[in-house]
Order: sequence, then C-alpha cells, then structure tokens
Amino acid sequence: MTSEDNFSEELEAHLTRNGFIWGPEPEIYDSLAGFYTYGPMGKLLKNKLEDKMSRVFKQEKFYEVEAPIIMPEEVWDASGHLETFVDPMVLCSECEGSYRADKLIEEDYDVVADGFSDEELLEFIDDQDITCPSCGGEFEQDIHDYNLMMETRVAGRESYSRPETATTTYLPFKRYWRFFRKKLPIKVFQIGKAFRNEISPRQHVLRGREFTQAEGQIFVTEEMKHDWDGYDRIRDEEVRLWSAEEQEKEGSPVTMSLEEAVDSGEVTSEGYAWSLYLAWELFRSVGIPEDRMRFREHQEDEKAHYAEDAWDLEVELDSFGWTECCGVHDRGDYDLSQHTEHSPEDLSFKDNHGKEVMPHILEIAFGTDRPTFALLDIFFDEEEERLQIPTHVAPVDVAVFPLVTKDGLPDIAEEVYRQLHERRFDVEYDDSGSIGKRYARQDAKGTALCVTVDYDTKEDDTVTLRERDTSDQVRLNIEDLDGAVQTYLYGDAELRELGEPVE
Amino acid sequence: MTSEDNFSEELEAHLTRNGFIWGPEPEIYDSLAGFYTYGPMGKLLKNKLEDKMSRVFKQEKFYEVEAPIIMPEEVWDASGHLETFVDPMVLCSECEGSYRADKLIEEDYDVVADGFSDEELLEFIDDQDITCPSCGGEFEQDIHDYNLMMETRVAGRESYSRPETATTTYLPFKRYWRFFRKKLPIKVFQIGKAFRNEISPRQHVLRGREFTQAEGQIFVTEEMKHDWDGYDRIRDEEVRLWSAEEQEKEGSPVTMSLEEAVDSGEVTSEGYAWSLYLAWELFRSVGIPEDRMRFREHQEDEKAHYAEDAWDLEVELDSFGWTECCGVHDRGDYDLSQHTEHSPEDLSFKDNHGKEVMPHILEIAFGTDRPTFALLDIFFDEEEERLQIPTHVAPVDVAVFPLVTKDGLPDIAEEVYRQLHERRFDVEYDDSGSIGKRYARQDAKGTALCVTVDYDTKEDDTVTLRERDTSDQVRLNIEDLDGAVQTYLYGDAELRELGEPVE
Repeated sequence: MTSEDNFSEELEAHLTRNGFIWGPEPEIYDSLAGFYTYGPMGKLLKNKLEDKMSRVFKQEKFYEVEAPIIMPEEVWDASGHLETFVDPMVLCSECEGSYRADKLIEEDYDVVADGFSDEELLEFIDDQDITCPSCGGEFEQDIHDYNLMMETRVAGRESYSRPETATTTYLPFKRYWRFFRKKLPIKVFQIGKAFRNEISPRQHVLRGREFTQAEGQIFVTEEMKHDWDGYDRIRDEEVRLWSAEEQEKEGSPVTMSLEEAVDSGEVTSEGYAWSLYLAWELFRSVGIPEDRMRFREHQEDEKAHYAEDAWDLEVELDSFGWTECCGVHDRGDYDLSQHTEHSPEDLSFKDNHGKEVMPHILEIAFGTDRPTFALLDIFFDEEEERLQIPTHVAPVDVAVFPLVTKDGLPDIAEEVYRQLHERRFDVEYDDSGSIGKRYARQDAKGTALCVTVDYDTKEDDTVTLRERDTSDQVRLNIEDLDGAVQTYLYGDAELRELGEPVE
Repeated sequence: MTSEDNFSEELEAHLTRNGFIWGPEPEIYDSLAGFYTYGPMGKLLKNKLEDKMSRVFKQEKFYEVEAPIIMPEEVWDASGHLETFVDPMVLCSECEGSYRADKLIEEDYDVVADGFSDEELLEFIDDQDITCPSCGGEFEQDIHDYNLMMETRVAGRESYSRPETATTTYLPFKRYWRFFRKKLPIKVFQIGKAFRNEISPRQHVLRGREFTQAEGQIFVTEEMKHDWDGYDRIRDEEVRLWSAEEQEKEGSPVTMSLEEAVDSGEVTSEGYAWSLYLAWELFRSVGIPEDRMRFREHQEDEKAHYAEDAWDLEVELDSFGWTECCGVHDRGDYDLSQHTEHSPEDLSFKDNHGKEVMPHILEIAFGTDRPTFALLDIFFDEEEERLQIPTHVAPVDVAVFPLVTKDGLPDIAEEVYRQLHERRFDVEYDDSGSIGKRYARQDAKGTALCVTVDYDTKEDDTVTLRERDTSDQVRLNIEDLDGAVQTYLYGDAELRELGEPVE
C-alpha cells in the first residue's frame, strides 16, 4: 500500500534469537522465499491470537469448520480462481528476473496500482523509467498472467492448494443448511493454511507463500442485511473510515459511528456495518492499538466485479507503514450462484412464500501471520530489548525460577510450574544463569510476569512476582498466585495491589 | 492391520447428520477420495483433542513449533522420503484399477504384509487367487513403486507437501540448539497438516490423503536414553505390550510395568520407555479406554532400517478392529546425520570433552484424525442415538435453552450463554423446537450438560442442569453454574451433588 520499508535488522535479529520466527526455510539448504517456521515463542504468540480471535467469533455464535486444503480443478474453475487469481508479471529483458508489476510500482510510488489495466501498468513503468531492481535492465513491454495457485495431481486429477479458505468454506452449504435447521443467518469460520505462489515474496511473513488464513463467512438474505439482528448493539461504536472519495481527493480518514456510516451511505447495509465492527473487534481483542487501525474503502477499479461493498482494515506498522490486514466484503450471491451453475446441486432455497432465494455472503477475511507480526513490530522496544506486548497476549504468561538449583528450591518451583500449567496459563521454567539474566531473557520474549522461589519461600510459602515493564516486584502467598496472575494479565489490577512491595 | 470392517451406515449417517464429518469432498462436485470436512461438531471435538494433547506435551515441557508444509526436493532427498516413501502398487490387467498390494492382502487376511518384499507380495496374491475388488480381473505380475508425496512447483523448483511433520521439525535443529541454550534433551512438538497421495484411501478419515499429524520429537544423546531424567516418575506405570516374539508365536499382549519392560530387554532404553508412557498418556488423556489400547512391536521386516526400537500404539475400534494410531520410534542419529551429509551445515555439537556428538531422536508420532474418529466409534450408542463420549472431551460442554422464546426468558438464557462462554466453556444456544427435541439433539452430539432457563428462573435465579446419559436433572443457582459445570466435566462430582434433584 505504501512505499515505506523500515524493517530493521535489529527487529529481525530479535525475532530470530528469541525463537519467534525463523526462515525463510529450509535455512540449512537453499531456502525458498516466503516459507517460515514459527519457533517456540512465535507459535505461543500465534496460538494466543488465534485462540482470542476464535473466541470473538464464538461469542457471536459462529461455528468453526475445517475443510480440505486441496480441491480438484473444477472447484477453482467454478469459483473463478483459475481465471482471476492471477498477478500481472513483467520480465526483465536482461537478467530474465520476473516481478509483479503492480507491487513494483507501489513499492516506489505512493499509488494503488492494484486496479491498473495491463496497459496502465506498462505505461507507468515506461513513464517513470522503472528498471529491474536486481540488474537495472529494462523490462519487456509485455504483461504475463501468472496464476498464483499451487498445482498438484491427486489420483490423476489436476488439483490445487487453496489460495484462501473462502471457497472451501462455501462448498458444504447444503450441509450447513440442514445442520442449522434451515435458518439464516448461518455463521461459520475457518482458520487454516493457504498457499500462493507469489512471484516475489517480500516483507517477511506479511506476504508468504504459505500462510494461515482466518475467515468468517455469514450466509444471509439480501433483506436481512438491511434489518440486521445485532445492529442495535453496535450502531454507536466508532471506527475510522477512509472512503474512496476521501482517498481520491487526498483527504483523511474520518472517525464516525457505524450508524452515521450507514445513514450517510458510506457503507451499504446494517449487516455490512456489523461485519466491519466484528473485524475491528477481532483486531482490538488481540491488542492492536485502535489509533493504528483504519478502514480503507476499495476504489472502483480495485473491487472484485461481484463485490457490493469492500473495505480493508489496515494496521500501521513501524516496519512497513499502513498495511492491509483484513478485508470485509459483501460478496452478494456470487459464490453460491457460481457453484449452483457449475455443480449438479442447486444451492438456493425456497422461502415461506415459495420464492427461490440464493443466499448472499458477508465475509471477514484475514490472516493470522500479519497481526502476529504487527504485535512484534509495534511493541518491540529496541533500546531496552524488551517486547512490551499487552499482557493478555504475552507469549509466556508467567515464568517460574528457583533462585538457586539446590536446597529443595527446584522442587518447589516445579510444583508452582505445575500448578500454573494446570490453571491453563502458558508457563516457562528456567533455572539457568543468574536471576538478572533470566529476567532479561524473559523481557526479550515479552513474558508478562516472573515468579521467583527463594529461601523465604521455604519459611512462609511466599514468592516474588515481578512485572516486565517496570521490573517492580511484590511478595505474595503461593496459594494466591493463580488469582493474582489472572487478574493482572487482563488488566483488572495493578501489580502493587497483588502483594507486599519488595524494595 | 486386521481384516475387520464393520463401519456401519448408521454411524456414518450419524456423523454426517450431526455435523461431525462430511465428505469425501468436494461433495457437490465429483468428490476426491480421502478428503473430508470437519463440520461444527467434528471441529469442536478435534480441537478439544488437540488442546488436551498439547497440554500433555507442555506439561512435560515440550515447546510447540509450526514449520512449513511445503519443502523443496533436496530436503526430501536427504530425509530419504523420495526413495523410501513409496507404496507397492499392483494394476488390474482388465480394468486397469490400481491397488496398494499390502493393504489388498491385509484387508482379507490376518497377516502383516507391510514388510513383504515385492516377490512375497506377488506370490501371496497368486497363491490366494486375490483378484481385483472392482472388476474381478487378475492382477498384472508386477509391483510398481508409487511415491506418496504430492508434488508441486514453487518458483520453478520441484517441491513436495510433507507426508509427515517429522522432517520439517528437525531442520531448525541449530535454531533450537541456541534457543534452548545448548542443552539436551530438547523437546518440541508440531501439530499440522500432512499429505499422502494414497493409492486407494479407505476407512473414512483413518487413511485420508490430507490429515492432521501431531508429533513429539526429543533430541537426546545416546547416553541420556539409558539414564533418563523422568524415568523414576513413570517406571511403575503399566502398559500392554505385544512383542514381536509373542506375535510370531500367536501369543497375547502382556501387561507389565515399564521397569519390567526395560529390565527384561523388551524395550531398549529408559528414554524409550518414557516415550511409550507419554504416548499412552496422550491417548488416555483424551478418553480412549485403556482396555482398548496396546503397544505392538514392529517385526524385523516392518522396521525402518535406522529404527533402533519401534512399537505402535493400537486402539481397538468397533468399526475396524485394532488400528495403528501412534508410532513410537527411536530413530537413532539417522535424521541429523542425513541432513549433515546433504546440507552445508554440521548438526553435531562438541560435548564437554570436545567429542563430536550427533543427537539421536526419540519420536512419538500420531495423527489427530484417528483418535477423533476413535471416540466417535467407541462411544456412539446406536440404539439410543446418543454419543456417550467422556464429558471432558464432549464437543459441546453445555447447551443453554430458554424454555420458551418469550416473557424475557431468551434474554436471561443469552446472559447465561455469555457467562459460560466467558469462562471458556464450549457453549451452544438453542431455542428452537420442544425442550424434549432439544435434549435429543444435544444427546446425539454428545453434549455433556444442558441448562434450561424457565419461569422459576425469573423468580429465584435458578436453572435446571441435565446430564446426558441418565437424563437426570438438578436445580441450582445461576451463580453456582460455572463451578458446577467445571466440577462435573472433570468427574470431580456427580450431578446430584450439584443441586436439588428435579422430579
């Protein structure tokens, strides 16, 4: 979206050293751009995000499903992916390097080239004398269509890994229809892997070839969108909207209530406004600061031809500026109509008046790699080498140390570890090096709290509890620890309220 | 493994109707054998299993990682998968149908054909006059090697989807080595998708082409295996072992303590015995009955050439008899030696005496589809159409109903729903049809408890709590509900201890 790229070596080194993200893999061979491993800390963080986001969906009575990643060709033909899931590629006439034309432009110029026609792309490259980033050569005057899906053969049939979860979530519609007892809206979500053979993967895990997609899909009727069940609850919620019109005249995003957005015609329906709210809530729930979030409306030439309304939730990253992290789409009846046309099944239903109705779909589509990266990017304090991530999404909730590895302290510390583990906290045990070093290591990983078992523990069953950002400590009884940790992580108490201050 | 196949239409229909498992997908097109969708109930159940199993791993201080599914060819060349991950295939001389030779034999005869040579396979087929299951034709006198990996091209490079997670977990060994501060054992696990282009997928989700693998990997030294840190804690635990010798002489599995197994030489090391214990515990923790579990030792010709010790955990299913669900392998130093040989990196380390040490690997390898299916298979009561699954793994912990959809009861029920959701239970809300029908629907899904909000609730803040298997009910106060549900699910109280009995 923007031309910023401040992804620092310090941040990348920090993520590698502290077990967040490794790659591109396979590192020990010749690595393949766009494939990463989440190490122990990265995986804890990513799990936490996916768990919190699942809970937001479930709170709104969405049900999770898990569909296959690989589907045969006819599915992708029907969904339109075979024809339209292509990127415009240009080749260097000298080194034969291939580049995605629109991204090549967007990386250096502050324009949205996503919707450019082939002619417009070539013209822009020509006008601005854009040359090959690798050898400086001129580009061929030709745009190649490059399909992003990864192909494989299964049982002799041409098949593809899904490039997003959407289609695989739509196919069992008739199964949902019966399971949910023939009543709309039907709300389902899916979190799972998707694959895109990006021409030139960039920006770390932000544009990987293998990534985790998370998509909420709501099957509705056209009428329902304009008289939405949960609308009253969210109409007064405020979001930041940057309309296509404001973008055109280089204006700024405007904060407004969802009701204002509906009434002024900025967004097309109550149901769509509710979907925007849900996207906002999903990102806010994992600790993305609201002042780093905005919705940007798709311009006419960006929008899929079937999209009735389309806005992207963007997050402002230190490394890459404003970055698309979620798309909210009113897909109309496009998808189920396509599958009705291409398959032997009719996915419409008869309403109470005997009228045939083809369900529409409202979609909240995002990945979990980007918000995971966003938290690391936003909350890394380079000077202190500390990850000041909100405590409710800290990869490790609480670390447990015995002061020394003798005199029975490790046994007590192990017992504290087990007790916290059983209460479902993410706990780490560390007994190596000085206490100071152990604190520093936990600060680097973003661990919210550290518990130290010392000689006093043997006397009076108390331990110290230390918070990350201030290094302040309190002393409290082991039996109060579960409750104290829980209260602290969710911001319901300050550290000093949880025990006796330690000087 | 055995020739049983009693997978009933009733069970399959039950799983479809109640939103557990749908497929093979894409159902509305021409479906591809071996690909399934977990519907809303199936996904809740599978998540629950994966969550419990993760917690067993974490309790033992394993860390989770997430590595790419797709890796380039040189990785699979080094790991040995390109050469050895092949199935013996026979072709029908009449209809040209292709079949996996060993499974063809095992399905009708009670032998382990897994380790047969090509000649032995052809001889057995010939001797027993085995013909094509589809057309009755004779098979060609030829075994074809059929590689199971799904191939794709990424950035012009030949690549494959992983057929198991193992290799992708091993590759970052040097990263672990630094992150875990150069100290073995290092314990990691990975849960994620894997793909095998099975020649003829059978037995529902038990042998799918796309499936979820879950593998614990422990990097150790040779010496460590024989002086294992956690051995004291598990030496007295009993498991059922069916040794290669007993299998040979058609004897039975023997229940013995792990210490007896080590001392008698049945298993090769303390570390390996601990790995067996962990596998046993993983399956027990999700509610697989112990009397349906046994370890079966690999016979010499089944064992991978590098395997120092190999036993399978088998579970007895009503549908398919004894079924391999987990493999526990001492892989020696095979894997890291191979990657040291094929990559530019040396994955050995120098010990305190300056000696070069190549780490060994102990592996607990299983999938989560099989235990998920196992619970559905074992606990489905066909007559009552009730899923009598252990309450701590019930897909829905508790369902909430308003008695009627008026007089403010739905608002109270919604509030109870929210309260239980916030306490992290899996909750379902249902307000459609008679209470009797709603109970029956929940019984079919295996829901542990049902809460009904009725007119008394408005008077005294009490609700009814009903248990699945007896239909018994008690009345209790809404504010005691969280604690009551928690206690009940984990078997720490009987229903009648939780409130006043309802006649």
